[in-house]
Amino acid sequence: MSQTAPLHIASAGLGLKADFPGMVTADGKPWHYLDTAATAQKPQAVLDAMNNALGRDYATVHRGVYGRSAQMTLGYEAARRKVAGFMRAASENEIVFVRGATEGINLVAQSWGMANLREGDRIMLSQLEHHSNIVPWQMVAERTGSVIDVCPLTEDGRIDCDALETMLTPRHKLVALAHLSNVLGSVLDARRAADLAHGVGAKLLLDGCQAAPRMKLDMAALDCDFYVFSGHKLYGPTGAGVLWARESLLEAMPPWQGGGAMIEQVSFARTTYAPPPQRFEAGTPMIAEAIALAAAIDYLAPFDLDQLFAHESALARQTRDMLRGFNSVRLFGPEDSAGIVSFAIEGVHPHDLGTILDEEDVAIRAGHHCAQPLMEHLGVPATARASFGLYSDEADIAALARGIERTLKIFA
Amino acid sequence: MSQTAPLHIASAGLGLKADFPGMVTADGKPWHYLDTAATAQKPQAVLDAMNNALGRDYATVHRGVYGRSAQMTLGYEAARRKVAGFMRAASENEIVFVRGATEGINLVAQSWGMANLREGDRIMLSQLEHHSNIVPWQMVAERTGSVIDVCPLTEDGRIDCDALETMLTPRHKLVALAHLSNVLGSVLDARRAADLAHGVGAKLLLDGCQAAPRMKLDMAALDCDFYVFSGHKLYGPTGAGVLWARESLLEAMPPWQGGGAMIEQVSFARTTYAPPPQRFEAGTPMIAEAIALAAAIDYLAPFDLDQLFAHESALARQTRDMLRGFNSVRLFGPEDSAGIVSFAIEGVHPHDLGTILDEEDVAIRAGHHCAQPLMEHLGVPATARASFGLYSDEADIAALARGIERTLKIFA
Repeated sequence: MSQTAPLHIASAGLGLKADFPGMVTADGKPWHYLDTAATAQKPQAVLDAMNNALGRDYATVHRGVYGRSAQMTLGYEAARRKVAGFMRAASENEIVFVRGATEGINLVAQSWGMANLREGDRIMLSQLEHHSNIVPWQMVAERTGSVIDVCPLTEDGRIDCDALETMLTPRHKLVALAHLSNVLGSVLDARRAADLAHGVGAKLLLDGCQAAPRMKLDMAALDCDFYVFSGHKLYGPTGAGVLWARESLLEAMPPWQGGGAMIEQVSFARTTYAPPPQRFEAGTPMIAEAIALAAAIDYLAPFDLDQLFAHESALARQTRDMLRGFNSVRLFGPEDSAGIVSFAIEGVHPHDLGTILDEEDVAIRAGHHCAQPLMEHLGVPATARASFGLYSDEADIAALARGIERTLKIFA
Repeated sequence: MSQTAPLHIASAGLGLKADFPGMVTADGKPWHYLDTAATAQKPQAVLDAMNNALGRDYATVHRGVYGRSAQMTLGYEAARRKVAGFMRAASENEIVFVRGATEGINLVAQSWGMANLREGDRIMLSQLEHHSNIVPWQMVAERTGSVIDVCPLTEDGRIDCDALETMLTPRHKLVALAHLSNVLGSVLDARRAADLAHGVGAKLLLDGCQAAPRMKLDMAALDCDFYVFSGHKLYGPTGAGVLWARESLLEAMPPWQGGGAMIEQVSFARTTYAPPPQRFEAGTPMIAEAIALAAAIDYLAPFDLDQLFAHESALARQTRDMLRGFNSVRLFGPEDSAGIVSFAIEGVHPHDLGTILDEEDVAIRAGHHCAQPLMEHLGVPATARASFGLYSDEADIAALARGIERTLKIFA
């Protein structure tokens, strides 16, 4: 397994593509997959874990009195502990399995938000948030009469923490920010955001979708209150993600979805609820997905996340340098973006670029990236975006460059 | 493939066990899995679909401009059409992918319920409902001031439609019932329930978790308004289920979870939502799971669901006859139960029975089956439950009988 090979932190790549069955085209050629910020390819180890969990090991959890169900329960709860370790959480009881980051944020908005936000309270977001960290708050704001504020960005596309400091007031009950921008690759000064939020008595939620696969997580060091990420962006399967919250917060939060497994006792007269995290996991959970997510975390274990960050940042820098070679290219985001590069080519719609690149077996994303308010801020309807993963290498950038050259010839 | 073999509708079994990699023990012996009502084992075809979707075919949906993402989107939407066909829905736009039946009911409760239920309105449930069809309504009743009524059961454990007729009033806005009881195997006269509900102007939600794998579904013939089931009980993967609702109802329902993919346009000033079903599918969906669920439906396609119902009912009858041979056994539910048999042995706790059976490679469920109000009605804290699937056969019943004999010797 290449997992145990020594790490060469260079843009040349880590030599991991062979671990990922998705990294070849239908006709067996290398696929230059530059859409990892949308979703990551999965290593064979994740596919194998899914296959075993749904096949030879399959049973339900938390309920069966037979051995295989007990085993499956151990596997599911071991996955929770694995996630807790990955995030350096204080306890596995702080880990709630959800479908993905979107569901995690909705859970916080509808449970914590509905219980804690009042008319006139304020919620602080930023201009670069993903729709999943905007719309749930708009919905809860509408129902509670609370108000949303929008923290601006610095010139180079970071959440402006100086502005945040100025704008925050004791009326702010929640600050919800992307830890790492899915469009610009800019990294939040999360610890400062936490200090600023706590300084006015607000809670901090971090959308960790792009940070979890790229940065070493430490919940205590970050000092945030809620953290969410999607498993499918962390080289895991679709259908599973994580909400982390301080245990004391989870304890106080009312249930959001009702059903089996989240109750203590049900009667038509009075129903009582289980303690967290079970309180927030109604119904049969995504058993196989949680177990396969743990396999993804196992796959990452031999790597130092800081090194992966450096690897992807190097690729991003190289890509920005390459793109600067084209006069008609406009670059967005900071120079030190974390493995995500957004750009536009004058006179070429990003969708057309994406389509032509596809003919060269290069996959980029073109669109608003579920961040329309950021597009408005940038003054474009869409950007082209190349995003990297641990399997990305120089060959991907070279293929992107060739594709852009061809595109410019077509549009010349 | 045994799928195309002629069907022998007999309790001897359909000869399908070899299609299911989960149907052997860790040491390679036949596993007598009698817990299909909790979750079904999955055929190899489902595992293969999952493996391809997460591996060689993997990409995100609805967003990518490259070919593989377009293909994946086609696959995901083809899964939706496949489900629509399976349920004989009027349109695939009536199919919302959810994590499972529990999420489906919570979606209806929190979107339709919060928008349509007022103080003093009444919700009709029954004594045999699963917690997932009780707790979401208790939560919405508490928030809206509406009131829950409980339809009683007939002597043999069916929802008493005569009582339903007497109890329903124009204050009832919703009737939510199990199509097929997960504890007793009793089948609801669903069409009568629909007529009764509609007669007072109420909507009918059917919890189809146990019916979907055992009965031919036809949304128009059932004439219900909402129908939910879990994919993992239909021989599909964990993490995916279905909410069906009349298109006109979905059209009028406000969104429940906010995020990417469910919006039309997002700005901090005003966000507008996509039409259903997208409006209810916030975030990256359970892509691979939906595709694997479609593979489960494909696996079922060569079978006549009525024949599967007859096969499992025959096994249930045979099991009841076998159990009646033991003086100390008490049987619950109707004689013509649909593949699910609940029972108790005098002097033996169901958990002890389950543990001893496990030593014989027989897996039954012991507990309250997420139906505590039904347990209260039956006057027991728990039952033992044997439930069948299309792979079940006489050998499973014989193994159960041997295990019960051994148990009785131990407890004698």
